[in-house]
Amino acid sequence: MSLFSPLTKSSENPVLFAKYKPKVQAYRDALAAGILDEYKLPDELIPKKDGVDVTVIPKKFLSESEFAITESSGTDLVKKISKGELTAVEVFKAFAKRATAAHQLTNCAMQLFVDEGLQRAKELDEYFQKTGKTVGPLHGLPVSLKEHYDYKGKVTHAGYAVWVDRVTDDWALTVKLLSEAGAVFYIRTNEPQSLMHLCSNNNIVGLAKNPNNTSLTTGGSSSGEGAMAAMKGSVFGLGSDIGGSIRCPAGFCGAWGLRPTQKRVSMRGVASACTGVQEGVCCVLGPLAHSADDINLFMSAVIGGKPWERDATVIPLPWRKVSEPNIKNLTVAICYDDGVVKPTPPIIRGLKLAASKLKAAGATVVEWEPIEVEKLIATCGSMYNSDSASDQLTALGASGEPLAELTKVALSFGCGEKGTTTQEYQRLAFTRDTYRDKYQDTMSEKGIDFILTPVYVSVAAKPETVHYWGYTNLWNLLDLPNVVFPTGLKCDPALDAPDKTYKARSDVENYEYALYDDADEFKGAPINLQLTGRRWFDEELVKASKVVQAVISS
Amino acid sequence: MSLFSPLTKSSENPVLFAKYKPKVQAYRDALAAGILDEYKLPDELIPKKDGVDVTVIPKKFLSESEFAITESSGTDLVKKISKGELTAVEVFKAFAKRATAAHQLTNCAMQLFVDEGLQRAKELDEYFQKTGKTVGPLHGLPVSLKEHYDYKGKVTHAGYAVWVDRVTDDWALTVKLLSEAGAVFYIRTNEPQSLMHLCSNNNIVGLAKNPNNTSLTTGGSSSGEGAMAAMKGSVFGLGSDIGGSIRCPAGFCGAWGLRPTQKRVSMRGVASACTGVQEGVCCVLGPLAHSADDINLFMSAVIGGKPWERDATVIPLPWRKVSEPNIKNLTVAICYDDGVVKPTPPIIRGLKLAASKLKAAGATVVEWEPIEVEKLIATCGSMYNSDSASDQLTALGASGEPLAELTKVALSFGCGEKGTTTQEYQRLAFTRDTYRDKYQDTMSEKGIDFILTPVYVSVAAKPETVHYWGYTNLWNLLDLPNVVFPTGLKCDPALDAPDKTYKARSDVENYEYALYDDADEFKGAPINLQLTGRRWFDEELVKASKVVQAVISS
Repeated sequence: MSLFSPLTKSSENPVLFAKYKPKVQAYRDALAAGILDEYKLPDELIPKKDGVDVTVIPKKFLSESEFAITESSGTDLVKKISKGELTAVEVFKAFAKRATAAHQLTNCAMQLFVDEGLQRAKELDEYFQKTGKTVGPLHGLPVSLKEHYDYKGKVTHAGYAVWVDRVTDDWALTVKLLSEAGAVFYIRTNEPQSLMHLCSNNNIVGLAKNPNNTSLTTGGSSSGEGAMAAMKGSVFGLGSDIGGSIRCPAGFCGAWGLRPTQKRVSMRGVASACTGVQEGVCCVLGPLAHSADDINLFMSAVIGGKPWERDATVIPLPWRKVSEPNIKNLTVAICYDDGVVKPTPPIIRGLKLAASKLKAAGATVVEWEPIEVEKLIATCGSMYNSDSASDQLTALGASGEPLAELTKVALSFGCGEKGTTTQEYQRLAFTRDTYRDKYQDTMSEKGIDFILTPVYVSVAAKPETVHYWGYTNLWNLLDLPNVVFPTGLKCDPALDAPDKTYKARSDVENYEYALYDDADEFKGAPINLQLTGRRWFDEELVKASKVVQAVISS
Repeated sequence: MSLFSPLTKSSENPVLFAKYKPKVQAYRDALAAGILDEYKLPDELIPKKDGVDVTVIPKKFLSESEFAITESSGTDLVKKISKGELTAVEVFKAFAKRATAAHQLTNCAMQLFVDEGLQRAKELDEYFQKTGKTVGPLHGLPVSLKEHYDYKGKVTHAGYAVWVDRVTDDWALTVKLLSEAGAVFYIRTNEPQSLMHLCSNNNIVGLAKNPNNTSLTTGGSSSGEGAMAAMKGSVFGLGSDIGGSIRCPAGFCGAWGLRPTQKRVSMRGVASACTGVQEGVCCVLGPLAHSADDINLFMSAVIGGKPWERDATVIPLPWRKVSEPNIKNLTVAICYDDGVVKPTPPIIRGLKLAASKLKAAGATVVEWEPIEVEKLIATCGSMYNSDSASDQLTALGASGEPLAELTKVALSFGCGEKGTTTQEYQRLAFTRDTYRDKYQDTMSEKGIDFILTPVYVSVAAKPETVHYWGYTNLWNLLDLPNVVFPTGLKCDPALDAPDKTYKARSDVENYEYALYDDADEFKGAPINLQLTGRRWFDEELVKASKVVQAVISS
């Protein structure tokens, strides 16, 4: 089994795609029209060139109270709203301004409808004034949504040009549950063609930029959510992840993200090209946020809505209240190299800092020895393309849209367009299950509570360059939950010179490691890490991530 | 999609199989040698012909106290042992006698090792005498095991002649958990070739007989467990079910059986021909027992052992304590016909009796309208054979053993030997998930708590005749849990004359319905029914089944 099997098929058809261009333009026009004067960032505050940190801009145009509101945690905001100390409208307007600016600065939105959000915020205030009660645990919190969840009455295209005018007539269940809990919607965010890039390019609205350094990618595929989290344009956002799509943008943008264990958050009404259920590696929904506490709030609200009563694939595991662990009782295994692609200097610096801080705080720190990563990443890639990438090529071919470079890469994972026979596919699942046990048994035998790893080989990459997903999609295959969090460190050319002497062990490593070629170009890119816990024990992971991050970033 | 695609391939090889015959004979000799004089049923009590009810025989040779012990529930026995009112050895000897007789009368065993069971019972007694404590919630309970779970140091062949001398070197996890809870093992029970018959024939020890009428089949594939449950040769037994294999023998033999929701009971170390993981329809393990209370005891013990800590596929859903519902608060939907094969007169009699008793007791009774059953049964069958039945044909071909008639039928389900492409297979999973939602939504909309259906088209069938699994494997596909229970009724030629005027709607129905051709031949066959609940809510189902069965059998 190989990591890549290059694509030879093409679904491109320029003549056909010409018909879609006016529809695409109409979609873009609607997006531009969503930038309302009341919320707009003044033109003079928009940098003329890239390579800039735009996370500092909101402070320059938001009022003091707007800034304070948007810097607050969701946990605090909902408390204040429920005590009448803030209204949903006040909260909404502040976030709407910051989100609009975020979009102007990073192209993070696909749809902006702040007028609808304002209306909803007003209704929530009225309800509160009338009843003295909140509608739910997220009452009045502005929440951003990646685009590909069905949204009643709006277009849902899932990154495919062919669907750029396809209006969906119902809600994705998780979106509905967020709404029932009191969330306010006003923005749907950028995602790449095919939803399968750790980057953001697409033929609809184009690339999103990394707010920490606008020459770099946000990562993907919850690309716009990464930018929104870094810009604090929402309290939290709903992302999805089948190979790193929550964790990569959280990591690249310096935010928090949770990829929960599968089948805890509903996938009902989540759009994709799939005509079948590829259950070898399952996509999951989860939050990008600003803190572990807000991740906890998000999960407790979404799971508190008992999704299993309306989605037969969801397991009725309530979101349990667990305490924060004592750092002294934790054994953390650190992975400095997965054996396939060595992490670059800034990431190694982050891992070493983490190790020393954790040890100093009294945690037991051991080294994680990678287990057959290359085989498992090839397995995962082959599962993605087990149908010969047929569904994706069909959806792409339906408009004939040009294939983004990273779409071609994604369609080459594992078996690529060759696909698998059903027996091969079932054997991949056998491999998967064998190693799920192997990893769990190893953790049990060694007394390892959590595994700390890079999120990616390096910090945020240049656009359209990321090929290797192994630091994230290993965990999708194994279905172990992960929290990505900021260490507080950023790429610093003075400390993080590329190691040009390193001899790569393979072509794959040679390509990916060398992407980090000039530290100056990556300046300011956040150094995030990823904590991995036991399958189904997401609650313990989230609480531990709070403690571990506090130690590392202290 | 069709229900059957006849098999044209053959894996038979008489020359090759000739080499296996001595090994098979050795296996049979060992089984015969397992009938120890101390426990043996006197020859004069063994009927000379079939068509006999042998459930009445144990009373004729067991002592009064042995009979009382073996008629007791597991719940009572463990209580008495834990109070010192009974010893594990006393309990064991009584069951060992009854189990040995069960085997002599029905051919229900594949391996008998009562000497090892006695030794284990002695050790448990010593532990209790020394510590005053039991080792766990099943301390001293004799438990029977279907053959195909790995058993350390013993042959595990899973119904394939090629493995008749394959010693497994570890325990299946669920067997280990039962042992850790205090269970005593002494018998591994009969199962059909390929594990895919609702009957029992195989080339190793041959057919098992139905204790209620020895001309009829026990059903399968937990065939020996069905006979053991009817004969009360164990407190309960561990069966497995991917299409009806717990429920059919429980139903045919007049016992209780639970097919729990998947991934609650560990499948680690369960042998089969599979070289891959066919996760479209998952096999599950569960108990055959004498009461709802004992099912509850079994599940609470097995899940209480936290299988998820040792098997990464198991979901950490603890076995919850729930109360018995008030019958007046229950809405039960009754299915009189699945639209594919109409049930025969004794089954209709059972359903009508159930309806009237439930109504009289205050339950709300409605009629269940079948939803696309034929399509779903074809989907399920195609999933079974999605690998072109390749793994099974390989395992069968490895010894060249003759194919049992019902093996040929099983290999013809759905797509049969043609198999599916990976895309087709994934689309079958899409169909499955669509209807999982559809069934759940229907139950929610109509306020239906439970669905009451036949277990099979008819009562226990003649050997090697059952082709249609729709009344059981529909629920495997949908993964809704089921309890099968006795109504107390038995097939009565005076009441249950075949309906020869019925015009079948299809060839499939024509064949299956006509199997019930002469009521005299089915005399004494139990009329069991099947109660189906919500996915994952096995606890509520078990409690409701107790209440519902009590009403129906009163």
